[in-house]
Amino acid sequence: MSDIASTPRPPYYAVIFSSHRTEGDNGYAEMADRMVDLAALQPGFLGIESVRDGLGLTVSYWDSVGAIRDWKRNAEHQVAQERGRSAWYSGFKVRIARVERDYGL
Amino acid sequence: MSDIASTPRPPYYAVIFSSHRTEGDNGYAEMADRMVDLAALQPGFLGIESVRDGLGLTVSYWDSVGAIRDWKRNAEHQVAQERGRSAWYSGFKVRIARVERDYGL
Repeated sequence: MSDIASTPRPPYYAVIFSSHRTEGDNGYAEMADRMVDLAALQPGFLGIESVRDGLGLTVSYWDSVGAIRDWKRNAEHQVAQERGRSAWYSGFKVRIARVERDYGL
Repeated sequence: MSDIASTPRPPYYAVIFSSHRTEGDNGYAEMADRMVDLAALQPGFLGIESVRDGLGLTVSYWDSVGAIRDWKRNAEHQVAQERGRSAWYSGFKVRIARVERDYGL
């Protein structure tokens, strides 16, 4: 079970990735795990929260827009992005957002 | 199954609500449905995406910070927030973020 990410005081950035999968695994699960491990090694990575139940929601947190751009350009991640468009997702939306305030329990 | 929200061109705002539930329903499911219906009636509401599988992730979209503030102050929603803190959630985090860019498939 994914945990609530421990993030620093705002401002920081969130990438909200909403998706629907196609039928079958087709190598998806292994690549998804690999991408989480790889993202965590990227400079500027702050944390990730991910849940799927039909709709998939993954929110990753970053210290800057530059860190998000560098992760998007990562060579192995680019292969995964291409495979996502061609095989794994029937639809997705990516939203890049600046977290301005947070609070919790 | 929740769908990917149809949102307008950025900028707009996202409220990212990450939570862990306590044991038992205790009136949660009914109130959660009611809050989604009620939020959709609020001025400035743009859409909502929600998934739970252990971790719960709900992202609601709004046209302004003022719309988010008004929803937070809604009387019936305030009762739900209080019950959330005292009974339904073992932990949660709310992040208010400005969506600056989006793209999709």
